[in-house]
Amino acid sequence: MTEPKMNGAESLVHTLLASDVDVCFTNPGTSEMHFVAALDHIPGMRSVLALQEGVATGAADGYYRMAGKPASTLLHLGPGLANGLSNLHNAKKAGSGVVNIIGEHASTHIELDAPLTSDIEGIARPVSHWVRTSPSAATVGKDAAEAVQAAMVAPGQIVSLILPSDTAWNEGGLAQPKLEIPAPEPFDADMLAQAAEALDGPESLLLLGGTALTESNLEVAGRIAAKTGCKLLSEWSNARLERGAGRVAINRVPYPIDAALKVLEPFKRIVLIGARAPIGFFAYPGKPAILTRDGADIMTLAGAGDDLSGALSALCGAADATQTPPAHVAKADLPERPTGPISLDTLAALIARAIPEDGIVVDESVTTGRAFFPVTKGAPRHTWLNNCGGSIGYGMPAAIGAAIACPDRKVMALTGDGSAMYTVQSLWTMARENLDITVLIFANRSYQILRGELTNVGVGNPGPRAIDMLSLDRPALQWVPMATSMGVEACRVSTCEDLEAALETGLSTPSPYLIEIDL
Amino acid sequence: MTEPKMNGAESLVHTLLASDVDVCFTNPGTSEMHFVAALDHIPGMRSVLALQEGVATGAADGYYRMAGKPASTLLHLGPGLANGLSNLHNAKKAGSGVVNIIGEHASTHIELDAPLTSDIEGIARPVSHWVRTSPSAATVGKDAAEAVQAAMVAPGQIVSLILPSDTAWNEGGLAQPKLEIPAPEPFDADMLAQAAEALDGPESLLLLGGTALTESNLEVAGRIAAKTGCKLLSEWSNARLERGAGRVAINRVPYPIDAALKVLEPFKRIVLIGARAPIGFFAYPGKPAILTRDGADIMTLAGAGDDLSGALSALCGAADATQTPPAHVAKADLPERPTGPISLDTLAALIARAIPEDGIVVDESVTTGRAFFPVTKGAPRHTWLNNCGGSIGYGMPAAIGAAIACPDRKVMALTGDGSAMYTVQSLWTMARENLDITVLIFANRSYQILRGELTNVGVGNPGPRAIDMLSLDRPALQWVPMATSMGVEACRVSTCEDLEAALETGLSTPSPYLIEIDL
Repeated sequence: MTEPKMNGAESLVHTLLASDVDVCFTNPGTSEMHFVAALDHIPGMRSVLALQEGVATGAADGYYRMAGKPASTLLHLGPGLANGLSNLHNAKKAGSGVVNIIGEHASTHIELDAPLTSDIEGIARPVSHWVRTSPSAATVGKDAAEAVQAAMVAPGQIVSLILPSDTAWNEGGLAQPKLEIPAPEPFDADMLAQAAEALDGPESLLLLGGTALTESNLEVAGRIAAKTGCKLLSEWSNARLERGAGRVAINRVPYPIDAALKVLEPFKRIVLIGARAPIGFFAYPGKPAILTRDGADIMTLAGAGDDLSGALSALCGAADATQTPPAHVAKADLPERPTGPISLDTLAALIARAIPEDGIVVDESVTTGRAFFPVTKGAPRHTWLNNCGGSIGYGMPAAIGAAIACPDRKVMALTGDGSAMYTVQSLWTMARENLDITVLIFANRSYQILRGELTNVGVGNPGPRAIDMLSLDRPALQWVPMATSMGVEACRVSTCEDLEAALETGLSTPSPYLIEIDL
Repeated sequence: MTEPKMNGAESLVHTLLASDVDVCFTNPGTSEMHFVAALDHIPGMRSVLALQEGVATGAADGYYRMAGKPASTLLHLGPGLANGLSNLHNAKKAGSGVVNIIGEHASTHIELDAPLTSDIEGIARPVSHWVRTSPSAATVGKDAAEAVQAAMVAPGQIVSLILPSDTAWNEGGLAQPKLEIPAPEPFDADMLAQAAEALDGPESLLLLGGTALTESNLEVAGRIAAKTGCKLLSEWSNARLERGAGRVAINRVPYPIDAALKVLEPFKRIVLIGARAPIGFFAYPGKPAILTRDGADIMTLAGAGDDLSGALSALCGAADATQTPPAHVAKADLPERPTGPISLDTLAALIARAIPEDGIVVDESVTTGRAFFPVTKGAPRHTWLNNCGGSIGYGMPAAIGAAIACPDRKVMALTGDGSAMYTVQSLWTMARENLDITVLIFANRSYQILRGELTNVGVGNPGPRAIDMLSLDRPALQWVPMATSMGVEACRVSTCEDLEAALETGLSTPSPYLIEIDL
């Protein structure tokens, strides 16, 4: 068979499609025009335009979590990549695979130091596991296939493929077939007997993270807990957690440091599967950074990139629990219908009652959402996504990616107002793609979390200038016109009755809908 | 005199104030809470909150250009810096001095690899001239003083000072006095006679950039042009250009490559003062990257960091032009009052008629604005700021910085809709600080520049998928509710009469005002 003649950009698109990468979150510029042209005449790639690259990279994160395969991004030179950097940080911490395609000046143009010239590899490296600049049109296909393979290294990796524009426009491109998906690393079998022995009663903890939190893996963990009496917890932030009625419910290590210390205090023996030993999100003067008790025996049976299902199965066998019915299976259980003004508790109850079967909840609710988790335990089965990198502005973009990965599932994006503003351009992409997302904005008009953090770091009595730097109420953001301006229908509510009706509206229509909740 | 006991954060604030840095564009997080506390109880620093860090860094760029001294930014860890990176790229290319203060985890916490941990120095380096992590509370003051000094190296530098949170909260801070402002490097005196000789008639060009574009320097250049018959041009993008009636007018090297080649073709001898030899913004297949004619004799009398006033004065002396009246002095000359529908020409005329005396025009008008420059030549004297790094989203943030630097001057921000969306959060900060900015949104609902660039790179006949990736009309952005949602009054116009009235309204009130111009 004779390959048709193609340029580097065309070989890129053909190779990505052959490698099963068929979504591209993009904001292209001049140096990417040949890719735009290739995407134009080669069918098969869904190109999703973002009005700021943080939306594109955050969407790629959410997409990977739900699709289990990477999307590509198409970014304009160093600054386009830079705009997407903080959500790539979040994606990296979540173990999401993302294939960044970053345009570069033509090779001969770089040394001229044009206005848009920058050290793209240098910008990419801090958030990437894999960085490569393709040297010629002939290598673009091979580099793209290897990039996708690298992105699929468990649990998922950030790859940044930099393509000088002459490698795109020159002829001689060679499309490549898909490369083998790398298997996860084996778990630490030498640790197995010791781990099984360690899980013995309520002073022992099985701490799970990453893909240990699938429905089937959680069921295995539930059997182990039932048999051994150990406790189960997940990390505070989870890339993807399956939960709801009929599934093994798991609590998270709390975010606030004092609460985390208290929850972890009892455990003398901790087995880690896909989780890391608990540490503080931040350091605080006079408080420990290691959250477990002094002398706790912490065993890593499997790290994030290892075979977590294998580790759980083996542990279950070693604990002789394979026939034990799982503990902690959540019963279908919804809170009473609340009425009147909205409080954090009534809000949690309404969300629990609204979560649809097989819904996806993208959670960037920060302080407002701390009460949501226990109350939603008995809601219909659903998937819960956290921000794993702590950089705010992940929620609405991740909801875009999740909705595109799962067009038949409804997405609820729970977000604080401060977080939502970071990537507010997301609303336009939701409207453009007509995504089935209901956005809940928790409008407390403040970086509420920082008020607590001021106290935590020892600033007990902040004055007006400090308070002002944490306040979003001067002027108050108005989310209904904000959403309207970008083509998203919206409403504002301040009572339980209105919120219930708004959730019904948002979740019953297939278009995006935004609800500003006045807190 | 006994120094009062202070922590590192307090020593930072005292040192910045002593170094004449009294504005801080910020979005702080937990690791910066001690700085927030210090800013709270130490008076003198104007803290300006931004809802996304691109606004903060872009504002610092605009501030430096108009104040001639750096502002500080206060950014939350690597991701906060990352969000501000593309506007730091623009600031770097503009030769603006910016003092970034970036919080970091406490020294002992970094090795734990918490969710927000990242390689901050690695993220900072590609956009910074100077990067340092302060090791202790005792060194913060000294490092801050040296950071400000480094930022003032001509024409201005990006400095990134990283402060682990324990260096902020520990006692032992030592406030430092202001260090000497470094003098610019001398110009190349050996080149002087040759340069003076080269400027002889219309085949010779004096190409200016950077601080060669002040009113007094332009006057000197005008004398040289009058005496020698050389032509004057500036670079396409200028950090700050003084212009308007009574000043020596200077044209820019055009952006579109064919136009640039044509304008530069006649010149056999080119003398550079603060400018670089003209190159293409991008490379295009089959077109040259060097825009000057083959064999042109290009002489650098002074680079961006050199003594540009000295170079111009010396050149003027060597050309025996000190008593020659300057050429190209712009006469007060306004275009006729246009009526009817808005075209690019009538738009330019209305802007020329609206520019107030001593107004500041922040220009990110991209394609729409290419006609503005000649028509505004005879407007009342004003200052014109370009985007020097090519990363869009610079305009509204830079307008914030300019307005804060010059509270008695009116600011017009001219911006395309695609560009404005990048840092749309700017509107909130304009409202919060009640800045005297009139924003003109050129709503062509497209990345119009890229349609031209598709053709330039050889893609003559784009199909619907390509067009769609460059279009912002699905859905159409609505700027009036957008502005309203962030507390900025706004209107939408589609006729000359309405635009004239809107400009009158916007420029006569001291609050921010947004005009969506339907193109």
